[in-house]
Amino acid sequence: MKKLNVGMIGGGFMGKAHALAYAAMPMFFWPAPAIPHRHTVVDVTEELAKDAAAKLGFDNYSTDWRAVVNDPEIDVIDIVTPNNTHAEIAIAAAKAGKHVISEKPLALGAEEAKTMLEAVQAAGVKHAVAFNYRRTPAVALAKKYIEEGRIGNILNFRGTYLQDWSADSNSPLSWRFQKKIAGSGALGDIGTHVVDFARYLVGEISDVNAVTRTWIPERPIQTGGVDKLGTVKNSSEDVPKGKVDVDDEVITLVKFENGAIGSIEATRNAWGRNNFLTFEIHGTKGSLYFNYENRDELQVCFADDPSDAKGFRTVYTGPATPYGEALWPIPALGIGYGETKIIETHDFFKAIVENTHVSPNFDDGYRIELIADAILESAEKGEWVNINKSEVKVGQ
Amino acid sequence: MKKLNVGMIGGGFMGKAHALAYAAMPMFFWPAPAIPHRHTVVDVTEELAKDAAAKLGFDNYSTDWRAVVNDPEIDVIDIVTPNNTHAEIAIAAAKAGKHVISEKPLALGAEEAKTMLEAVQAAGVKHAVAFNYRRTPAVALAKKYIEEGRIGNILNFRGTYLQDWSADSNSPLSWRFQKKIAGSGALGDIGTHVVDFARYLVGEISDVNAVTRTWIPERPIQTGGVDKLGTVKNSSEDVPKGKVDVDDEVITLVKFENGAIGSIEATRNAWGRNNFLTFEIHGTKGSLYFNYENRDELQVCFADDPSDAKGFRTVYTGPATPYGEALWPIPALGIGYGETKIIETHDFFKAIVENTHVSPNFDDGYRIELIADAILESAEKGEWVNINKSEVKVGQ
Amino acid sequence: MKKLNVGMIGGGFMGKAHALAYAAMPMFFWPAPAIPHRHTVVDVTEELAKDAAAKLGFDNYSTDWRAVVNDPEIDVIDIVTPNNTHAEIAIAAAKAGKHVISEKPLALGAEEAKTMLEAVQAAGVKHAVAFNYRRTPAVALAKKYIEEGRIGNILNFRGTYLQDWSADSNSPLSWRFQKKIAGSGALGDIGTHVVDFARYLVGEISDVNAVTRTWIPERPIQTGGVDKLGTVKNSSEDVPKGKVDVDDEVITLVKFENGAIGSIEATRNAWGRNNFLTFEIHGTKGSLYFNYENRDELQVCFADDPSDAKGFRTVYTGPATPYGEALWPIPALGIGYGETKIIETHDFFKAIVENTHVSPNFDDGYRIELIADAILESAEKGEWVNINKSEVKVGQ
Amino acid sequence: MKKLNVGMIGGGFMGKAHALAYAAMPMFFWPAPAIPHRHTVVDVTEELAKDAAAKLGFDNYSTDWRAVVNDPEIDVIDIVTPNNTHAEIAIAAAKAGKHVISEKPLALGAEEAKTMLEAVQAAGVKHAVAFNYRRTPAVALAKKYIEEGRIGNILNFRGTYLQDWSADSNSPLSWRFQKKIAGSGALGDIGTHVVDFARYLVGEISDVNAVTRTWIPERPIQTGGVDKLGTVKNSSEDVPKGKVDVDDEVITLVKFENGAIGSIEATRNAWGRNNFLTFEIHGTKGSLYFNYENRDELQVCFADDPSDAKGFRTVYTGPATPYGEALWPIPALGIGYGETKIIETHDFFKAIVENTHVSPNFDDGYRIELIADAILESAEKGEWVNINKSEVKVGQ
Repeated sequence: MKKLNVGMIGGGFMGKAHALAYAAMPMFFWPAPAIPHRHTVVDVTEELAKDAAAKLGFDNYSTDWRAVVNDPEIDVIDIVTPNNTHAEIAIAAAKAGKHVISEKPLALGAEEAKTMLEAVQAAGVKHAVAFNYRRTPAVALAKKYIEEGRIGNILNFRGTYLQDWSADSNSPLSWRFQKKIAGSGALGDIGTHVVDFARYLVGEISDVNAVTRTWIPERPIQTGGVDKLGTVKNSSEDVPKGKVDVDDEVITLVKFENGAIGSIEATRNAWGRNNFLTFEIHGTKGSLYFNYENRDELQVCFADDPSDAKGFRTVYTGPATPYGEALWPIPALGIGYGETKIIETHDFFKAIVENTHVSPNFDDGYRIELIADAILESAEKGEWVNINKSEVKVGQ
Repeated sequence: MKKLNVGMIGGGFMGKAHALAYAAMPMFFWPAPAIPHRHTVVDVTEELAKDAAAKLGFDNYSTDWRAVVNDPEIDVIDIVTPNNTHAEIAIAAAKAGKHVISEKPLALGAEEAKTMLEAVQAAGVKHAVAFNYRRTPAVALAKKYIEEGRIGNILNFRGTYLQDWSADSNSPLSWRFQKKIAGSGALGDIGTHVVDFARYLVGEISDVNAVTRTWIPERPIQTGGVDKLGTVKNSSEDVPKGKVDVDDEVITLVKFENGAIGSIEATRNAWGRNNFLTFEIHGTKGSLYFNYENRDELQVCFADDPSDAKGFRTVYTGPATPYGEALWPIPALGIGYGETKIIETHDFFKAIVENTHVSPNFDDGYRIELIADAILESAEKGEWVNINKSEVKVGQ
Repeated sequence: MKKLNVGMIGGGFMGKAHALAYAAMPMFFWPAPAIPHRHTVVDVTEELAKDAAAKLGFDNYSTDWRAVVNDPEIDVIDIVTPNNTHAEIAIAAAKAGKHVISEKPLALGAEEAKTMLEAVQAAGVKHAVAFNYRRTPAVALAKKYIEEGRIGNILNFRGTYLQDWSADSNSPLSWRFQKKIAGSGALGDIGTHVVDFARYLVGEISDVNAVTRTWIPERPIQTGGVDKLGTVKNSSEDVPKGKVDVDDEVITLVKFENGAIGSIEATRNAWGRNNFLTFEIHGTKGSLYFNYENRDELQVCFADDPSDAKGFRTVYTGPATPYGEALWPIPALGIGYGETKIIETHDFFKAIVENTHVSPNFDDGYRIELIADAILESAEKGEWVNINKSEVKVGQ
Repeated sequence: MKKLNVGMIGGGFMGKAHALAYAAMPMFFWPAPAIPHRHTVVDVTEELAKDAAAKLGFDNYSTDWRAVVNDPEIDVIDIVTPNNTHAEIAIAAAKAGKHVISEKPLALGAEEAKTMLEAVQAAGVKHAVAFNYRRTPAVALAKKYIEEGRIGNILNFRGTYLQDWSADSNSPLSWRFQKKIAGSGALGDIGTHVVDFARYLVGEISDVNAVTRTWIPERPIQTGGVDKLGTVKNSSEDVPKGKVDVDDEVITLVKFENGAIGSIEATRNAWGRNNFLTFEIHGTKGSLYFNYENRDELQVCFADDPSDAKGFRTVYTGPATPYGEALWPIPALGIGYGETKIIETHDFFKAIVENTHVSPNFDDGYRIELIADAILESAEKGEWVNINKSEVKVGQ
């Protein structure tokens, strides 16, 4: 069986999730399209990199991502670093002929994303962007229902991504609150997952009309380098504070090219919501509801059920639903975060081996950046902004 | 104990709900502020009126609402007729010196509502508009938490009202789909309840930015006069169809005067949603969630709970929560639609007897119409519309 | 339309619920089988009785239940007093030729219940016992599914009734904790509702095997006479305490005559459970789940649904489900405690007028007492106890 | 860092879960107590074993479990085979001085389990039995609350494990329906997980009183060797059928040594329930509820919450709850089946390295078998059965 050597740039939380997927993918999808081999991991210091290799099961480690990108033994570059570094690494990897998977959002904005897309297209390498939540089996099941026409034409999409890990004003000013590193705030960090759902399930978005807010304008400056996602608070009064220059919350109206309308909301100030990534879709023949906090379940109502037995069904994903053969033998044994990454890895490696395209890829990542840029522009101008189709190249 | 004679104009579904409240209010609130006496009911034909009186327990019936409005024995006029008749009846009642409660929405638009407000103010009578859902004990509990500062400053409000009784294109063209009678569609019929929640719980709305859709442009013309709320379908092909000229769905962004933002959505095309009237509120110290489909419950998360025991609490309303003394002796015996109307009646009769103001009243009804008008204007123009404060008179 | 005069013995919490039903029943069921007229209410003191009449809308009041029972103007005697008084009143009413409805449990035990059953049978009057929860539309819908074979043969029944209003050891020693007045504790007060569900939905119980516990052996003696259901606590140390001689909790295994098995549990010591009256039924073709705390909903899973869309449906009761025509025009407007009593009243008055039998009646009440007695006997002996069929007379 | 070589006997569904845990444990728990090295996997044929090694990442494979058990390079023997083989393998492994982890239930009955316990005690090796569900962070959180006294003294435990994968009479007669291989049916397969919860959270069980049923007495004989857990149906009429000689359902009353009472139910005939492993615990100061189908959540109600804000809290496990440091950085990213196995592996390897005992171990496994045997005896005799303490050796 073919083996593909992975060079992973970054060894933090997302690196753990990806390493798990590399180890576990063949255990779930067998025969695997290819065996992901954890060849080299890169981190910012020798100590961190060495530790990451031991912890995550990589054969080698390095502090020089350029060397790894250009290492002829490496087949795949996996980018799990902060947003502002995606472009440089991805473009270098593409030029070196490596297949590339990047964490999301793809870039700091559409302009940058476009250069990345052009680079991978020019190099003819495979590319993917890690909007992993659409790999949740229940989301894939929603897609199946829609494609089979089981809920009819879609009228409405309501998507939310609500968290509270930074709702405390004493949670630190990590890179996720700095525009120059993150590009945007809740919008890019979590809102783009909802945009990915919207495009995946409903279709292209044509127009947006948004409002954004930064609820906590300054936060304690983080001393350590690691992204703790707010679990470490610092409420002492003499800790220096820095400015937050990204959005804490965004709400946008959306219009789809196919006539559907909807709304998308993302906030990190929703006490009690942890990873409340939801969508509700109303079609002419039924409705769908999904909430990642109960991710084994898809709720569906079919309009043509008998009137005395009509209502939302809670369907647990399992062997009878998408990816079910590969996962666990009965429903509700438990889909976790790892499973979404295992499926993502499978689909990407399959595309590499079979020389096809996987979605979402850099083209999707670019289009999502166009939408994100339009959302920010709309919020600033206070008006509807059209997604500039002239900027969109067809291609993957 | 004082007795107040009620003349109720209209004997349909809402008439039943109000009659139940008149009969039951003293059983719940005792001693009652006053005993509502079901004096006369009015309907469009003698047969209907007579039947309504027998069914709903009124002593008399009439087909002449003007006569009833001017009957010196009548103390209170209760308007439970289609929207386009509210103004004429209410103004006549006010001129006759009667206290007036009107079903919602108050009028076909703000201009008309203003004439009603001016009439009741000029007459010095008590007035109320029947946005009954804020009487749900769980909603009143949310208000209590907010007033006591238990969830801090409000950042965000997300409200929905989703139904499916008219999602079928064969459900008839009742008056609710005709602009000249209803004023607007989902917006006025159900969306205004959400606007009432927003104003009640968060504060005045300053700006709106909306999109509306009419998903089913024509429906079978209804032959009978009764509003069946979609339970009678007519799918035969040769039934004549009429045009729907109101919205089936509305989504609007909202900005509040106090800085909060949010969204409001109302649709009657949401298969599987029955009376899905919800709000979620995020504050600096906690969050609230309510869904009328499970109306005995309020969900609340407090930010300062210990980190290993933080999460939404499901609080069942009962003796320890607002109106609890009057209702049932333990939580979850069951709050139904009737209870909201019983409380509404109590609060209105109390205001009459104690010569105070009840809320929501015609001033609230008028302000809600201003917002509804702005929502329609925004949807038409595709831009933010400011609620014209210059038009708002202070007063109740 | 026929009018039936009601004499109601008792003016407390249950009296309120019944009075509401008398007033509202014709508003919901129209044309009504008969108009219940609130003729006379009885309470223990003149002051209480007078107040009850004013509050509950009765024309007359009395402190002499025997006089009311024998009043020739009275058609129906409604017994809403503590358990130990049911028999004497019901038997006297039957002898006086009155139709009788009694609150549940019917009696202090099977022996007493049998005398009541014999009395009403001898008198030829109509009789009913107020196990109102089976009137919840969602429970009636479960019955409909079962009767139509939609969940196949029943294998299993799991019923619970969990409350917490007396979980606090400082909640007072009301009559509900005294064997001589209540007969038994959680078993009779709430557990018998579950037994009623079991018999209604599954069939006759043949054997039981139970364990009971009294978790709080003594409680503060209650000074006032009114049953506050635990809302008034008394934690002062010098309040005298009295002995609780009934069960706080009961769990029993059950075998049904048709081969099904199951368990029934009732406790008033379940913090956080308010009126958690549930059943789950597994059949060969599907499953049902109901929880009164969300009483508008019935959950049903059909085995023959497609494998990728199988799961529990949450069906909201409304116009398309039992009693739907009479209640509210769309689902989830809200079923409350009142509605169950309104339906109960309708069904009983219909039986009176049409000279048929209603269920549950005194025969059901008697059989439930046989089962309750067997449960207590089983708990005491620590062994399976067979429901003595020889004691059961066929008849209603 | 220390490396421990694992010999895994069995390469099916459970083997996959364990292999995932060996690969991922150090990624989560870092520094890891030891690195589990996937040395050799054993399966019944060379083809299956070779395939398992490639799929699951083992260096070697074998069809001779005895050779692997005696391989001096092997440190840990992991038994993931059908129940009837556990004893022989475990005893051989202990004699060879290997640490042993066995899938559950430990044995076909208490007698056999006792020989296993004696073997590992005699050998002085570490031992564990894979009741993995208590490793769910939400279950560990429940344990923490209880140990900290936050719900007071426990009065009641209600546990269920409901599935439907074999509710169809055409699902095949796998080894799980054969007494000689499985020991018992739903009881051993899933009910023992609930028994493990009961002992872990409440304490030792003293007495049981059970009823069992075999709802589907015969099933199609399975031709292939693989355990498909019912996903492959065979409804053709001419497929030969074999007898099911184990229970499909068991319900038992339980008494605990500390005075608590409760019930435990397990069934594989509950349509719509997938992995419905639940417990509800009522204490003097609060209540707990857990359902593995929503395994990121623990529900807890504290009696001393303010009366207007009392109710079940839905706590999502994450960094602030047990194992949180090791798992994912925010709550609700997603606990899946894999995570329970990762934690189980960590705890076992930690015990090996630190020379301590892990729980549940063979002593727990033995005591659970004593209880299971008593449940079957009780069901057969129709009477309470005491857990024979004289048979229980103290020790781990």
